[in-house]
Amino acid sequence: MAKNAISPTREENYPEWYQQVVKGANLAENSVVRGCMVIKPWGYAVWEKMQGALDSRFKETGHENAYFPLFIPMSYLEKEAQHVEGFAKECAVVTHHRLEPNGAGGLAPAGPLEEPLIVRPTSETIIGETFAKWVQSYRDLPIKINQWSNVVRWEMRTRLFLRTSEFLWQEGHTVHATEQEAQEETRLIHDLYAEFAEDYMAMPVLKGYKTADERFPGAVATYTIEAMMQDKKALQAGTSHFLGQNFSKAQEIKFQNEEGHEVYGWTTSWGVSTRLVGALVMTHADDDGLVLPPRLAPKQVVILPIVRKEEDRESILEYCDSLEKELSQQEAFGEKLRVKVDTREARGGGKKWQYIKQGVPILLEVGPRDVAAGKVFAYRRDTGEKWGVEKGAFTTEAGTFLETFQKGLFDKAAQFRRENTHEIDSVEALTTLFDDKGKEGSAPGGFANCYFCESPETLEILKPLKLTVRCVPDDQDHPVGKCIFTGKETTLKAVIAKAY
Amino acid sequence: MAKNAISPTREENYPEWYQQVVKGANLAENSVVRGCMVIKPWGYAVWEKMQGALDSRFKETGHENAYFPLFIPMSYLEKEAQHVEGFAKECAVVTHHRLEPNGAGGLAPAGPLEEPLIVRPTSETIIGETFAKWVQSYRDLPIKINQWSNVVRWEMRTRLFLRTSEFLWQEGHTVHATEQEAQEETRLIHDLYAEFAEDYMAMPVLKGYKTADERFPGAVATYTIEAMMQDKKALQAGTSHFLGQNFSKAQEIKFQNEEGHEVYGWTTSWGVSTRLVGALVMTHADDDGLVLPPRLAPKQVVILPIVRKEEDRESILEYCDSLEKELSQQEAFGEKLRVKVDTREARGGGKKWQYIKQGVPILLEVGPRDVAAGKVFAYRRDTGEKWGVEKGAFTTEAGTFLETFQKGLFDKAAQFRRENTHEIDSVEALTTLFDDKGKEGSAPGGFANCYFCESPETLEILKPLKLTVRCVPDDQDHPVGKCIFTGKETTLKAVIAKAY
Repeated sequence: MAKNAISPTREENYPEWYQQVVKGANLAENSVVRGCMVIKPWGYAVWEKMQGALDSRFKETGHENAYFPLFIPMSYLEKEAQHVEGFAKECAVVTHHRLEPNGAGGLAPAGPLEEPLIVRPTSETIIGETFAKWVQSYRDLPIKINQWSNVVRWEMRTRLFLRTSEFLWQEGHTVHATEQEAQEETRLIHDLYAEFAEDYMAMPVLKGYKTADERFPGAVATYTIEAMMQDKKALQAGTSHFLGQNFSKAQEIKFQNEEGHEVYGWTTSWGVSTRLVGALVMTHADDDGLVLPPRLAPKQVVILPIVRKEEDRESILEYCDSLEKELSQQEAFGEKLRVKVDTREARGGGKKWQYIKQGVPILLEVGPRDVAAGKVFAYRRDTGEKWGVEKGAFTTEAGTFLETFQKGLFDKAAQFRRENTHEIDSVEALTTLFDDKGKEGSAPGGFANCYFCESPETLEILKPLKLTVRCVPDDQDHPVGKCIFTGKETTLKAVIAKAY
Repeated sequence: MAKNAISPTREENYPEWYQQVVKGANLAENSVVRGCMVIKPWGYAVWEKMQGALDSRFKETGHENAYFPLFIPMSYLEKEAQHVEGFAKECAVVTHHRLEPNGAGGLAPAGPLEEPLIVRPTSETIIGETFAKWVQSYRDLPIKINQWSNVVRWEMRTRLFLRTSEFLWQEGHTVHATEQEAQEETRLIHDLYAEFAEDYMAMPVLKGYKTADERFPGAVATYTIEAMMQDKKALQAGTSHFLGQNFSKAQEIKFQNEEGHEVYGWTTSWGVSTRLVGALVMTHADDDGLVLPPRLAPKQVVILPIVRKEEDRESILEYCDSLEKELSQQEAFGEKLRVKVDTREARGGGKKWQYIKQGVPILLEVGPRDVAAGKVFAYRRDTGEKWGVEKGAFTTEAGTFLETFQKGLFDKAAQFRRENTHEIDSVEALTTLFDDKGKEGSAPGGFANCYFCESPETLEILKPLKLTVRCVPDDQDHPVGKCIFTGKETTLKAVIAKAY
């Protein structure tokens, strides 16, 4: 097979490569509405796999799904000062509730609303208002709710999945009787997100907390998982916020505690979005297109009958059907395999290349000789390896094979991150690591591990370099060192990088 | 147990009874945003069960899920003349994309959009625009897409689930190469909806087509399923629209056919919404609250340990746990039973009444004597029957019991509909059936079966009676009769009723 189904390659033009992989894999496309995307069936199927895995974990940990309004009264957004500052600049505002003829053959907005409504950019304020009614006594706590929904943040520069004006996500919102419980919840979800990213997406993540300037607007603490993309930039993949009593005070979420005193609740919120599909692409895709971790692949094995002579058709199709049935009885990751036979007329290898670009982990070709010999001709997407194998042997080993495939993707990404993580001990070294002198991608880049004292003046140095503190990792066990920005002694290290 | 957990009863005040059932069952509540509801965890769990069943049926019949933008440019809505007329009066309009300080300490909309955006009331226009790009050749057809999403239709008079400004739904959109295929698709979904309503919701439905004035705006034909609520009004529960080439012409959905000619596609659309939750309530609930068909119950059996003495606690809880485990291994409707033990501290029967109001099909109480005797004390929600039964016997029969329970609900609703369906042979008889002389509910009401010739003048007679033609049923096998409105000879009969 010719190489490089995707043009340009990563090397040639990484941002454009990304767009072409998304397009080639039929994941999504831009719509006529600025910044809003159409998620195509294959992209949506990947998102559904993600949803399924996350949803069952949320439920196992005692959360319930619910649904809250799309619209937020403008005045609600104003209740938490930092929150409104964080979102006011990117709000879609509904001001009218009908259309009327404009007198020139077209339409014009009519029926002005007394109070404008904001299309939710996130739901703390509207959900908090409801929680305030639900919580009366300590017996009503904890409240642990999750919502699957769409949100809108008006973005000027958008990119499919990574930054879109409308996106799909889940947002968890909880209220607890004590600070400790709320902290524990925040951490529980932080861990859950990290496990999901590593076990399902095969995407290694750094776990840590955000510095003040990178926190969710209104949060006391924001915990994040950060992944390294193949251009060595960081991508924030999921955040869990400890909101303290900031929102409960703004929204009067109060309850009678066991001692009969009226006190404020402690709240958390947390979310991941369709952005994860973009992260998946940029972690595993190659110059032939998408590579899907088997655990999230809508189809893990696709069987392609190769019919060249009409007289072979029946026996080949029968063979493929029995292969599909047998494989579908096998298991990987505790679930039955997802297998499909594609019997559409072949058009010069086009079908096979389509599945390669869509990232299906294993393709099996079946021609007349394979039927005669009781074999299949296998192709694995990650390495491009091809081999003939006895049908029964392939079937019994398929589950294990997919699990190994999944682990291989993770290991490869972990190695890439290791190779591109640097211990940095001065601002000069940091500058050298990232300064591309105007030529994007010419500096080594990666993750910079630096001693760091959390001084706000750090920002002044990072901004011109287009760098951010991605997180202060949870695992801290360093001897005393000097903050590379202030020279102050500290045992903390932070990870600094360019980011999406 | 005392009767009537819900006040008022159906007899006393049906509309208010409905609100109280929804409230008592924790299904939903009104939000601060006019016309938008909060779907609470129990209500959302019922919706999730509906989604799961429908989604797998859509997939089995070759449909794929995707996601399209929330916003529709105002000019898109104008493309199909009837369509815009149908929806212009109830559109939420986004006119600005940020908020700025208003100079008085508050906020004001800023960043006016060049073209206002409509929050989708339905997605034919925005999805059609994308389909036009996807369809080039007959080889690209059929396209069979479904979307799970929220939609907004600004309603002045709202009622939880039945009529809300924002609601959740699924909308299917398909394109076909021929008229016949599109007709078949419309019918396939029509049948699928009817089977879902009857097999899952235990709600008998009439299948038929809508008369011109009741069609979806822009459709050539609308097929509907209509159910009878306990106040004998009709509720439209799901519609499937054959759109002909109306939308494909408005949106240029064209393709090259096998002969090389450029022709327009044939499209369909179809949807059901969270309105079905309201239909479920009004079909089965009684004066003690919700009654859930087991197939859609988030929990089918709830076990309530009755601990009066601390020394019994351990043995009772152990017994309940083993009961839960054994029951969870049983099956009904081809799925494992959904069972829960509620170990929260009891508060004077409050827990049991809560589950009754929430419509859980079977409650099992377990006290010290039951443990000693190896028994459980069972309560079935539909009949209110209570009985002691040997634990093992109950367990092995639980699946069959739930299936019989489900059938019983259907039979009861079917009988109610039969008893309240009338053969009507004149406008006078129709008037007598429905004229309540200003006292709501005083006339017999129900479904009126009438000879009907589809003359538009029928509307003039029905309007003042607040009646509509619900549908012209699919099953028509009548001798010639006289249209009750025009006196013309016809073999068609229509069903006329008051409706939600």
